[in-house]
Amino acid sequence: MRTLTTGLPDGFDAQALGQRVMDRCDSLAEHTDEPGRITRLFLSDATASVHAVLRRWMSEQGLAVRVDAAGNVIGHRSASPSLATTKTLVLGSHIDTVPGGGKYDGVLGVLIASAVIEALGSAVLPFHIDVVAFSEEEGVRFGLPYIGSRALAGSFDPAWLNRRDRDGVSLHGAIEHFGLDPDQIPKAALDPERFLGYTEVHLEQGPVLEHLKRPVGVVSGIQGQSRVRLRFEGDAAHAGTVPMDQRRDALVCAAKLAVEVQDYGRSVDELRATVGLFEVWPNVRNVVPGAVEMSLDVRHAQDEIRMAAVDALIETAERLSAADGVRFAVVEHQTQQATHVDGNLTAALVEALQASGVELTEMPSGAGHDAVAVADLGPVSMLFVRHPGGVSHHADERVWPDDVATAVEVMTRYVLGLADQCHEGTLRP
Amino acid sequence: MRTLTTGLPDGFDAQALGQRVMDRCDSLAEHTDEPGRITRLFLSDATASVHAVLRRWMSEQGLAVRVDAAGNVIGHRSASPSLATTKTLVLGSHIDTVPGGGKYDGVLGVLIASAVIEALGSAVLPFHIDVVAFSEEEGVRFGLPYIGSRALAGSFDPAWLNRRDRDGVSLHGAIEHFGLDPDQIPKAALDPERFLGYTEVHLEQGPVLEHLKRPVGVVSGIQGQSRVRLRFEGDAAHAGTVPMDQRRDALVCAAKLAVEVQDYGRSVDELRATVGLFEVWPNVRNVVPGAVEMSLDVRHAQDEIRMAAVDALIETAERLSAADGVRFAVVEHQTQQATHVDGNLTAALVEALQASGVELTEMPSGAGHDAVAVADLGPVSMLFVRHPGGVSHHADERVWPDDVATAVEVMTRYVLGLADQCHEGTLRP
Repeated sequence: MRTLTTGLPDGFDAQALGQRVMDRCDSLAEHTDEPGRITRLFLSDATASVHAVLRRWMSEQGLAVRVDAAGNVIGHRSASPSLATTKTLVLGSHIDTVPGGGKYDGVLGVLIASAVIEALGSAVLPFHIDVVAFSEEEGVRFGLPYIGSRALAGSFDPAWLNRRDRDGVSLHGAIEHFGLDPDQIPKAALDPERFLGYTEVHLEQGPVLEHLKRPVGVVSGIQGQSRVRLRFEGDAAHAGTVPMDQRRDALVCAAKLAVEVQDYGRSVDELRATVGLFEVWPNVRNVVPGAVEMSLDVRHAQDEIRMAAVDALIETAERLSAADGVRFAVVEHQTQQATHVDGNLTAALVEALQASGVELTEMPSGAGHDAVAVADLGPVSMLFVRHPGGVSHHADERVWPDDVATAVEVMTRYVLGLADQCHEGTLRP
Repeated sequence: MRTLTTGLPDGFDAQALGQRVMDRCDSLAEHTDEPGRITRLFLSDATASVHAVLRRWMSEQGLAVRVDAAGNVIGHRSASPSLATTKTLVLGSHIDTVPGGGKYDGVLGVLIASAVIEALGSAVLPFHIDVVAFSEEEGVRFGLPYIGSRALAGSFDPAWLNRRDRDGVSLHGAIEHFGLDPDQIPKAALDPERFLGYTEVHLEQGPVLEHLKRPVGVVSGIQGQSRVRLRFEGDAAHAGTVPMDQRRDALVCAAKLAVEVQDYGRSVDELRATVGLFEVWPNVRNVVPGAVEMSLDVRHAQDEIRMAAVDALIETAERLSAADGVRFAVVEHQTQQATHVDGNLTAALVEALQASGVELTEMPSGAGHDAVAVADLGPVSMLFVRHPGGVSHHADERVWPDDVATAVEVMTRYVLGLADQCHEGTLRP
């Protein structure tokens, strides 16, 4: 990796900053709800001890630390008082994990944001920076993702406070138990007028950067999702007595569609089309299957491409089932729109990446992130870090220290680049 | 239906005999282990009461009734004492049912055999006839089919007596509890030297005769079966983050094989090829499937055709999985050879069927029957009765009274035809 230091703060040491991020990821991984593996659910005891550590680290950096009513830890770096600044750039990610998760999913983005603050030192910036450690993104404890980021974005629905976890504790109760006041969640919302943007660094959770041998990549958009459940109904029949030409085999019909789903997915750039769930009735060796229910998961960063794909695949299912004399129905159809990244923030991220000597990769995010929720508030952008081995939501999750150093450099250049834009008047702080 | 009465006993009335079979099927259906549905497991209380009824009916026909140590009820009609006869023709089927079974599966064959005895009246025959109500064919109680017929055929393995049902009762104990001596089972075996043949009438349990609009059909052989379990292993992956060209999707690969199984099955006359079981890991919407296990059930009345099919399909699976970068293995492979029907008995059955004015249908049996076990002893043949609606192992099981009447006529002609062959010297009684 070629490192350009032009424009970086004096004494900037990407390797040292990156190594500290690595060490701190190791350190936070010790705080877990389940000894032996990493599990940190929303506002658990392990989360409380992570809060204590983060608050200390942030205070040591001179940040003004607060915890909002949704349990987000926020370290505030003020803009230079000499500049008439009202806006805040938000950097961060989440600190919860799935049960048995990895060290980096979420935490990496929080600690890289913190490293950027370290790198900036006393640099004069025309905007405030909030480093945010979101309390909840995975949606495990209450089956509700983005609790923290929705609170920040002002899109938290108070009705969600009645949700209960598997132990019967309500979301309201969990927040109170943590010493916070759930009724103050509306006050956690940032004012869109004072929001410059949100930029999140996250583990890729996929193989693309590793495949291309790139340390980091710029996210071109967060894919929208269609979650469809399809049902094929034929006639269950004796596998020995019923001739092939007198069968209505639900499985074979559904199998034909699964093959077509893959073919279609491969034919459209950046489309993801997956049959992940496949349930057969009665699912015994000697009975021709009478029914199949299967999922169809289609994702693309452009909603119209995704919707066209779903329409085409449903049409294919109709054609296949009609040909086979099998009944077909769409039994569930949920969609989630794509999240667009901000053009200006993303251009600045691209510039910072190229200034860092990294070859550009622009790629969609196939998973959801806090940026999805924060996009309700205003501009967002994202940087992915290469994910060696691609094992996500698992103890084997890894990142390379060099890649983390590169991410710190790119993000530092990015923040400084935004400051330059403000000075040049192309960005209004 | 055209009825030819030439060669039939005086006063032969197919309709009346058929109607009595229907009435008796209704009557036996009242004996059940589970009120509200028909369930008669091996040597259950309901079986005991069916025994009592059958013994009475058989005695009323002048048959010498005995129950062997395996719980088979046998009604013996002696050949004319004036003829130096040593051989016995066995007619019958089974009286157990699956849980929630129908009125006709098994019982129909026993009662048609009984109706043939009625029709024969005092006709002079050069062989004995045993009407057998086999105690067990379905294999439900001890996971062991053909208990009764294997005892008769002399292929009952005494080790089976240690098997236990779900209540922990051993097969040995169940037989003793019924008042029989399990150690006498070897004596239930017929002497092959004295065995003329076994002919079973059974519900088709399939749609072929209904489709062809034929009341009865002659079984050309009982299909052998290959029961194979296949495993495909790819890489479980995130349905959003992993591009289509970097996946190893076990489901799509297995789905391709399922389609090829149907195509192959359709391409070979009388072949049955079925994927009935299909299990996916982890089987959730948003994960590209990492593994699939599926069954392959292949049946044909000619073993070499079945084995060639299995070989070809495994080769196809190897080709598909290699192309997809998916690992493939055969994890289980069981086979059961085809049962050949006896050429002479079957020719006599065809002749009887044609003499009854029925258009000939020769068809394989796709399900197993007591004839499979009895074939170890000597010649077997089978007649199928049309199965309207094709619902098998279910309360909705039906037969048409006219078809039953036809079956009675065909079977009566068949027995008389065998007698003619003996007189002519082409069959040695």
